[in-house]
Amino acid sequence: MRENMNKYLEKAEVLIEALPYIQRFNRKIIVVKYGGSAMVDGELKNNVIEDVTLLKLVGFKPIIVHGGGKEISRWVGKVGMEPKFINGLRVTDEETMEIAEMVLNKVNKELVTLVERLGVKAVGVSGKDGGLLKVDKKYSDGQDIGYVGEIKEVDPQILYDMLEKDFLPIVCPVGMDDEFHTYNINADDAACAIAKTMNAEKLAFLTDIEGVYKDYEDKDSLISELTIGEAEQLISDGNIGGGMLPKLGNCIDAIRSGVSRVHIMDGRIPHCLLLEIFTNKGIGTAIIGEAESRYYHEK
Amino acid sequence: MRENMNKYLEKAEVLIEALPYIQRFNRKIIVVKYGGSAMVDGELKNNVIEDVTLLKLVGFKPIIVHGGGKEISRWVGKVGMEPKFINGLRVTDEETMEIAEMVLNKVNKELVTLVERLGVKAVGVSGKDGGLLKVDKKYSDGQDIGYVGEIKEVDPQILYDMLEKDFLPIVCPVGMDDEFHTYNINADDAACAIAKTMNAEKLAFLTDIEGVYKDYEDKDSLISELTIGEAEQLISDGNIGGGMLPKLGNCIDAIRSGVSRVHIMDGRIPHCLLLEIFTNKGIGTAIIGEAESRYYHEK
Amino acid sequence: MRENMNKYLEKAEVLIEALPYIQRFNRKIIVVKYGGSAMVDGELKNNVIEDVTLLKLVGFKPIIVHGGGKEISRWVGKVGMEPKFINGLRVTDEETMEIAEMVLNKVNKELVTLVERLGVKAVGVSGKDGGLLKVDKKYSDGQDIGYVGEIKEVDPQILYDMLEKDFLPIVCPVGMDDEFHTYNINADDAACAIAKTMNAEKLAFLTDIEGVYKDYEDKDSLISELTIGEAEQLISDGNIGGGMLPKLGNCIDAIRSGVSRVHIMDGRIPHCLLLEIFTNKGIGTAIIGEAESRYYHEK
Amino acid sequence: MRENMNKYLEKAEVLIEALPYIQRFNRKIIVVKYGGSAMVDGELKNNVIEDVTLLKLVGFKPIIVHGGGKEISRWVGKVGMEPKFINGLRVTDEETMEIAEMVLNKVNKELVTLVERLGVKAVGVSGKDGGLLKVDKKYSDGQDIGYVGEIKEVDPQILYDMLEKDFLPIVCPVGMDDEFHTYNINADDAACAIAKTMNAEKLAFLTDIEGVYKDYEDKDSLISELTIGEAEQLISDGNIGGGMLPKLGNCIDAIRSGVSRVHIMDGRIPHCLLLEIFTNKGIGTAIIGEAESRYYHEK
Amino acid sequence: MRENMNKYLEKAEVLIEALPYIQRFNRKIIVVKYGGSAMVDGELKNNVIEDVTLLKLVGFKPIIVHGGGKEISRWVGKVGMEPKFINGLRVTDEETMEIAEMVLNKVNKELVTLVERLGVKAVGVSGKDGGLLKVDKKYSDGQDIGYVGEIKEVDPQILYDMLEKDFLPIVCPVGMDDEFHTYNINADDAACAIAKTMNAEKLAFLTDIEGVYKDYEDKDSLISELTIGEAEQLISDGNIGGGMLPKLGNCIDAIRSGVSRVHIMDGRIPHCLLLEIFTNKGIGTAIIGEAESRYYHEK
Amino acid sequence: MRENMNKYLEKAEVLIEALPYIQRFNRKIIVVKYGGSAMVDGELKNNVIEDVTLLKLVGFKPIIVHGGGKEISRWVGKVGMEPKFINGLRVTDEETMEIAEMVLNKVNKELVTLVERLGVKAVGVSGKDGGLLKVDKKYSDGQDIGYVGEIKEVDPQILYDMLEKDFLPIVCPVGMDDEFHTYNINADDAACAIAKTMNAEKLAFLTDIEGVYKDYEDKDSLISELTIGEAEQLISDGNIGGGMLPKLGNCIDAIRSGVSRVHIMDGRIPHCLLLEIFTNKGIGTAIIGEAESRYYHEK
Repeated sequence: MRENMNKYLEKAEVLIEALPYIQRFNRKIIVVKYGGSAMVDGELKNNVIEDVTLLKLVGFKPIIVHGGGKEISRWVGKVGMEPKFINGLRVTDEETMEIAEMVLNKVNKELVTLVERLGVKAVGVSGKDGGLLKVDKKYSDGQDIGYVGEIKEVDPQILYDMLEKDFLPIVCPVGMDDEFHTYNINADDAACAIAKTMNAEKLAFLTDIEGVYKDYEDKDSLISELTIGEAEQLISDGNIGGGMLPKLGNCIDAIRSGVSRVHIMDGRIPHCLLLEIFTNKGIGTAIIGEAESRYYHEK
Repeated sequence: MRENMNKYLEKAEVLIEALPYIQRFNRKIIVVKYGGSAMVDGELKNNVIEDVTLLKLVGFKPIIVHGGGKEISRWVGKVGMEPKFINGLRVTDEETMEIAEMVLNKVNKELVTLVERLGVKAVGVSGKDGGLLKVDKKYSDGQDIGYVGEIKEVDPQILYDMLEKDFLPIVCPVGMDDEFHTYNINADDAACAIAKTMNAEKLAFLTDIEGVYKDYEDKDSLISELTIGEAEQLISDGNIGGGMLPKLGNCIDAIRSGVSRVHIMDGRIPHCLLLEIFTNKGIGTAIIGEAESRYYHEK
Repeated sequence: MRENMNKYLEKAEVLIEALPYIQRFNRKIIVVKYGGSAMVDGELKNNVIEDVTLLKLVGFKPIIVHGGGKEISRWVGKVGMEPKFINGLRVTDEETMEIAEMVLNKVNKELVTLVERLGVKAVGVSGKDGGLLKVDKKYSDGQDIGYVGEIKEVDPQILYDMLEKDFLPIVCPVGMDDEFHTYNINADDAACAIAKTMNAEKLAFLTDIEGVYKDYEDKDSLISELTIGEAEQLISDGNIGGGMLPKLGNCIDAIRSGVSRVHIMDGRIPHCLLLEIFTNKGIGTAIIGEAESRYYHEK
Repeated sequence: MRENMNKYLEKAEVLIEALPYIQRFNRKIIVVKYGGSAMVDGELKNNVIEDVTLLKLVGFKPIIVHGGGKEISRWVGKVGMEPKFINGLRVTDEETMEIAEMVLNKVNKELVTLVERLGVKAVGVSGKDGGLLKVDKKYSDGQDIGYVGEIKEVDPQILYDMLEKDFLPIVCPVGMDDEFHTYNINADDAACAIAKTMNAEKLAFLTDIEGVYKDYEDKDSLISELTIGEAEQLISDGNIGGGMLPKLGNCIDAIRSGVSRVHIMDGRIPHCLLLEIFTNKGIGTAIIGEAESRYYHEK
Repeated sequence: MRENMNKYLEKAEVLIEALPYIQRFNRKIIVVKYGGSAMVDGELKNNVIEDVTLLKLVGFKPIIVHGGGKEISRWVGKVGMEPKFINGLRVTDEETMEIAEMVLNKVNKELVTLVERLGVKAVGVSGKDGGLLKVDKKYSDGQDIGYVGEIKEVDPQILYDMLEKDFLPIVCPVGMDDEFHTYNINADDAACAIAKTMNAEKLAFLTDIEGVYKDYEDKDSLISELTIGEAEQLISDGNIGGGMLPKLGNCIDAIRSGVSRVHIMDGRIPHCLLLEIFTNKGIGTAIIGEAESRYYHEK
Repeated sequence: MRENMNKYLEKAEVLIEALPYIQRFNRKIIVVKYGGSAMVDGELKNNVIEDVTLLKLVGFKPIIVHGGGKEISRWVGKVGMEPKFINGLRVTDEETMEIAEMVLNKVNKELVTLVERLGVKAVGVSGKDGGLLKVDKKYSDGQDIGYVGEIKEVDPQILYDMLEKDFLPIVCPVGMDDEFHTYNINADDAACAIAKTMNAEKLAFLTDIEGVYKDYEDKDSLISELTIGEAEQLISDGNIGGGMLPKLGNCIDAIRSGVSRVHIMDGRIPHCLLLEIFTNKGIGTAIIGEAESRYYHEK
C-alpha cells in the first residue's frame, strides 16, 4: 500500500502544480486553432477535445476554430471533381464552395458531438451565424481563385453570447462578403482574427510541426520562446519557409493586437495543450511581446 | 395626387389591421416548419424568410425548423449512391447519414444567410448543439432502417439562450442517441417536439397542400378550422390519407401539449405566413383545442 | 378567389415594405409633438393614437408631447375670463395657469385612455413629475406675460424609467421654476427639448400645415427635404413666416443637438405618421443634417 | 452650554427612539389616504408631505392616495353648475366628471410639486395610467348617479414599477370601466383597494376626526386599538355612524386581505403620521387583526 | 527527451482523470471540517489549503469550518489558568470563552492568510457575523459547563453572499444565543449544521484517524463505503467508540438531511482531499445514503 | 393632554429636522473611526453602536474602523509581558503581534454582536480578508519596531461586496505585507486610507478630545470649522501638538483625496455622531476643503 500511496501523491502534486495556471487563466479567452493530423487520428482527436473541455471546466473560456482541408479534398473527389490549387490556395468555384461548406459544417458538428459526449455544452457556429466573419474576395498574385475570403471584419457578439451562456463555441471558417456570398477562409486566419478581436489571452496553433526552428534544416534547433522582434528577424533573415511564414505572420499580428501569448505546437503530441498550459513543460514555440520577454515556465 | 393618397391610405390601413395581431403575439414563440416547394423556388424562399424576419422584428420569437429531403437525394445521387426508402422513410446507412448531415447543415447556413441579409441576427443550430435533440433509433414495422431517429427528449436551453440574445434560431433536424451517434429526424416531428417543449403559441407547417379537406377528392372542401376532436373523427372515418396522417397526428399532439394553435398552410402561396397572422384572411387549416373552438378571424 | 388573393398579396407587400423601416428604428426614441386639428377631430385623434401605438408595438420607443391651447381657451371662457395674448403668447396669470394645468392634464389623461384602449400601457406625466422640465420665466419683448416658461433643463430620467418599464409616455408641457412655481410651456419647445436631451432618432411635429414651402404663397412649392443649411437660408431670405419660424428654429436646433431627422407633417392627413415612417411615401417636410443630405425614401 | 447640551441629547433620544420602527418598516409599503382639512390648511399640508417624504427617505415605500371633494365643488360652482349629492355621493354627469378629473389631476400635481420641493422624486398617476384602477358603475340604492365608479380590479404594476425606480407615487382616484369611460372613485375606497392588492404593511386614513369612539357622543371615549371583531361588534351595536361606517368597513376589509394595521387618525394634528409611526405615542385608532391584539406602543 | 515525455504524458493523464469529477462537482458546495494534526503540522496545513484552493479554482464552492482546541488550551495555560473538561467537553467560563474566541479568530485569520497567499480571495467569518450560528446552552448530563453552545439555527445568508462574491469562506465555530451571549461550538457540529442547511454536495471531516473500522481493534478492517443503515448497525453493535461516535452521528444526520456524501478521512495523508475527489483512489470512509449504495470510485 | 401633545410635536420636529440630512447622505459612505473612551464605557459603546446602526437604517453606508490599544496592553500584561513603546508606537514583536491580532478580532466580534443585537446585519473583517489592507513595514525614526505596518494599498472590493449585500462592515486594523506577514496598523490611518479609497462622503474620528483648539491651552478656543488651508497654517504655526498632529494630517490627506468632510469629535458626548449629522448642532471640529468653506449648519 505504501508504494501505491506514493503514486497517488504524485498525482496530487500534478494537480497542485496546475493551480497557479488555473488561476492565471481563470475566465480568460483561449483560441485554439485545431487542424492537421490531430484532426485525423481518432485518439489524438479525443485527446484534443479532452484538453479543451478540461480548460472549459476549470474556468477558462476556450474557443475552437477548426480546418478541414483534407476532408474537403476527399469529398471533392467523391463527386468526381479534381481539387485545384494555386500557390497553395484551393481554387474554389461555386460547386467546390458548396462542398467545402458542407464538409466543414459536418466536421464542426462532429467536434460538437465529441464535446457534448464529455458532458460539456458545445455549439457549432459558422462565420455566417450572427455575421461573425465578414470577408473580401482574396486574390492570389492577382489571380481570381474563386470563393476564397480574406477577413475584413469580425463581429464577435455571437461568441460573447455563447460564452456567457456557458457554451464551448466551435467555429467553422466560412464567411460572407458584403453581397452575402459564401467564402472559404483559411482557419489560421480565422483563429487569429477572432483572437485579436476578442483580446484573447492565448492563441494556440495545433499543427504538424514541432514549432519554429532557428535553422529549418536542424531539428535540434527548436526555439521555445520568441519575441516578435526576434521572429521578424528570423523572417527577414530568410530562415522561415513554407507554411510557417504566414503562420508566424499571424502570430506577430496577434501579439501586436493584444493577445498575450501565441503558441505553435505539435498536435501529434498527446495532450500538448494541457502540458503547455498546466505543467512546467513548455511545448513547441511561444511567441510573445518584447516587454514580456521573460520565461513563463521555469525550465 | 388625391388618387395616389388613397393608395397610401390603404397601405396605412393594412398596417393598422396588423396592430391587434402584433400585440397578441408579442414575445410569443412561433415554430415554423419550413419545407416543400417553398424551399426550392427562389422567390418563395425569399418570401418565407421575409415573413419570418418580419415576425421577429415586430416582437415575436420565431424559430425555423427546416427539412431538406430533396437536396439530400440529389447529393446521394451525386456520389453515385441510390436513395432507398421503406414506407416513405429513407433508409439511412452510415454514408447516407454523413451526406444527410452535410446537406442539412448546408441548407441551414443558407437560411442563416438569407435572414442575415435582411439585417436580422440568425444562428443555425443542429439538434446536436447543446444536446437539443436526443433520439432513439426508429424502426419501420420492425425493420432496421439505419440512422433514423425518434425524438425522445428535447433540451430547449440553447434555443432559450439564443432567443434571449435576440437571435432567430434555425434548427436542422439532426440528433444524437445515448451513444452519441448521429441520426436523421423527420422535420415535422422535430418542429412539433420543439413547439411542445417550449410551449409555443403557434406551430405552422408550410407544405405543398392547401390544408385539410373534408373529402380528400374534393378540392373545394378545404376546412379552415378544425378542433382536435373533429380531426380525430376525420382520421377514424378514414378521410385523411398519405403524408397528411402523421402531420395531423403531430398537430393533435401539439395542441394536447399546450400549443394554442397549429396551422397547416400552403407554402406555395406567397407570404402565406403573414397573411395568416396579420390579416383577416385565414390561410389553410387551423387545428385548435376544443375549448377554443371560436373563430379567430372574423371571416 | 383568385382576385381576392391578389388583394391579400398586396397587403403582404405593404407589411414587407415596412420591414427595413421597422428594423432601422428598432428601440429608437421617436418624439411626436401632437397638436392642432389632429387633436380636435375624433377620427384623426384615433388615427394618430393608432399610429403611435403601432410604433410602440413594433419595437420603437415613441414619446408623445401634446398641446391643448384651444381647450384651455374654452375653459378660460367657461369660468368667465377673457383669454389674453401678447405676440401670440398667452398671458398667463395665476388663475389662468391653474386652468391651463387642469386642462392640459385632462387632455393628457384622455390620450392615456386612448392608448390603453388599444391594449398598450400608457402613462401620462407632466413636466413636474420627477422634475422632468425645469423652466425660467419667459418674457415677450421684455413684457411680463406671467407664468410662461422657457425650458432651462430637462431631467429625462423619468422617461427612461417609463420606457424601460415598457410604458408609452405622454407628456403634458407644464414645468416648474427654481422656486417650484408652475409654468405653462410651449409644446413645440417641450418636444424639441426632450428630443434633444434624449438623443431621439426622430422628432415629428403634427401640425395644420402641409410642411415648408419654398414660396409661402405657392402651395405647390412644398419642400420634401431640407438640410439645416437650406433651412437657415430660407429664414434669412425671409421666406418663412408666422408660426413656422419658431418651429423651424426648433427643427434646426434639434438636428444640431443630434436628432437624426425632424419632420413637419400635416396631422390632417390620416395616418401621416405611419405613411412617413413605414412606406416609400414621404409626407410633409423633413429637416436633416448637412451630411445626411441624401434621399431617405426612393421616390 | 450644558443646559443646551441636554436639549441636544433629547433630540438624539428621539432619533434613537425611532430606530426600531425604521427597522420594522424597512422596504414596506404604506398607503396614506390623504384628505380633509389636512389638504386645505397650508401648514398642515406641508406637515403631511414632510412626514410622507421622511417615510420615503428612511426606507419605507409610501404611496399617497388623495381626494379633492371640496375643490371639485368649488370648480363646479365656478362654471355655474350646482353640485348635487344623493346619499352623500356626488351625482356625476359627464360635465361634472370632466371638471372632477381636471381638478383631481391639478391637486395631484400640486402634491407632486410639494414632494419634489423636498428633493424627493415624485410621480403623479391617475387610475387610468397603466390601467391601475378598473371600475364598474356604482348605483346608490338603485339610482343612477352618473360616472361614480366601484373598483373591480387593481393592476398595481405601474406602482411597483415606480417604487422600483425610487419614485413616491401619488394616486388620483379616477378610473376607467371596460368601455374606457372615465369614473370618479371614492378616495377611501381607492386607498383601501390599493393597500389590499399590494399587501401593504399599513394603511393610514388622515381624516377630520380623532378616531373611533366607544360612544360617538362622548369625545373622551376614543378607542386606541380595535380588533376587527370588536369593530364589527361596534357596528352591529349601532355605535358607529355617518361617514365612519364605510371607513370602518374599509378598515376591516383591508385587515382581512392581509394589511397588518390600519389607522384612522386626525390629520389636523401636526405630524400625526410621524408620531404614530416613530414614537411611542399612538395617535387615533388602530384597527388590527384578532391574532395581533397586543399593544404596539408601550403606552 | 522521449523518457521525459512519458513523464509528462502521465501528468496529462492525471489531469484528464480529474475531468469527470470537476464536472460533477461544478458549482457544488463542499464543506470541509478542518482540524486535528493537519492544523498543527506546517506542511500538512499547506497541503490542505492548496487542496481547498484548487477545489475553489476549478469551480467548486468549498467552505472551511475549523477547530482550534489545542491552541485554546495553550493560551488558557499562558494566562495561568487550568483547562477543565467534563465528558470531553471543555468547561467554558466567561474568561475561557473570551480566550477561546480570541484564539479561534486568530486561527481563522491565519487560514485566511494562507488562502490569500495562493491568490484566492478568502473571508473569515465567525458564527456571529450576519447571525450565522444561533445556539442554545448545552448541558453535559445535566451539568452546567458554561458557554458551550448547541446549534439551534443556521442563517446561511452570509455564506451565500460570500460565495456569490467569489470568496472562499472560512468559518470559526463561535455563536450567539438569543440573549446575544457568546458560545463556543464543537467544530464537527458546526460543519455538519452548515452542510445540512446549505444542502452541500459533500461534507468532509479531516481527522486523525484513517476512517471507520469494522473492528476498532483491527487496523486492517477499514471500511471504504458505508450506508447509513450499516453505520447505524455498527453503532448498535457497539463497534464504534470514543470520538467517532458523535462524528458518525453527524454523518448520518447530514446524509438524512440531503448531503450526498460524507467523508471521514485521515488529514495526515498529504492531499487526502484531492486524492479522494479527483482520483480513483478512495481515501478513508465514505458514508452514503441507502439508495446510493454503489461504488463511486471503480476500485 | 395638551401639554403632552407639545412634547410629541417637539419629537416630530426633531425627525423633520433630520430630513435634509438623511437626504443628503442617502447611499453615501461614512467611515467612522471608533476608539478611545467610547470603546471602554459600556453606555457610550451602546450609544455609538445605536448611532451607526441608525445611520445604516436610514440609508447611509457606514463602515466602522476600530482600535483596541488599551485592551491589547491588558492582554500583553496578562501573559506576563511588558508593553513597550517607541515614540508612541507599540514595539510589536512576533508574540505581541499574535496577541494584538487576537484581541483586535475579539473586539471586532464584540462590535458585531452589538450591531446584530439591534437587528442589523454586521460582518467583521480584518485587513487580511480579501486582501483589504496591504502594508509595508514602518520604521520609527529609522528604528525597527517590529510588526507595525504602513498602509501601501487598499483593495476595497470586500467592503463594496458587503455593502451591496446590506451588511454593516466593521474593520479591524490588521494587514499583510507582500510576504503575507501580519502587521498591526494604526486605526486612524486605516480609517483614513479606507475613506480615501472609497471616496467616502464623511470620515469621523471619535476621540477623547473636544476637537481642534485655536490655542491648545485655551479650552474655550475650540474651532468648529477649519479649511485645510487653515489647518496647515495652525500646524506650521506650531499650535497643534501631541496626538492631534498625525490625526490632523490624516484629515487634510482625506480631504485632498476627495472625502467631502472630516470630523474630529468627542466620543464622550453621548450620541455625538447623530447630533453632528442630523441636527443643527455641530459637534467638535469639521475639516473641509477650501472651496466648501461655507457653514454647513446654520448656527
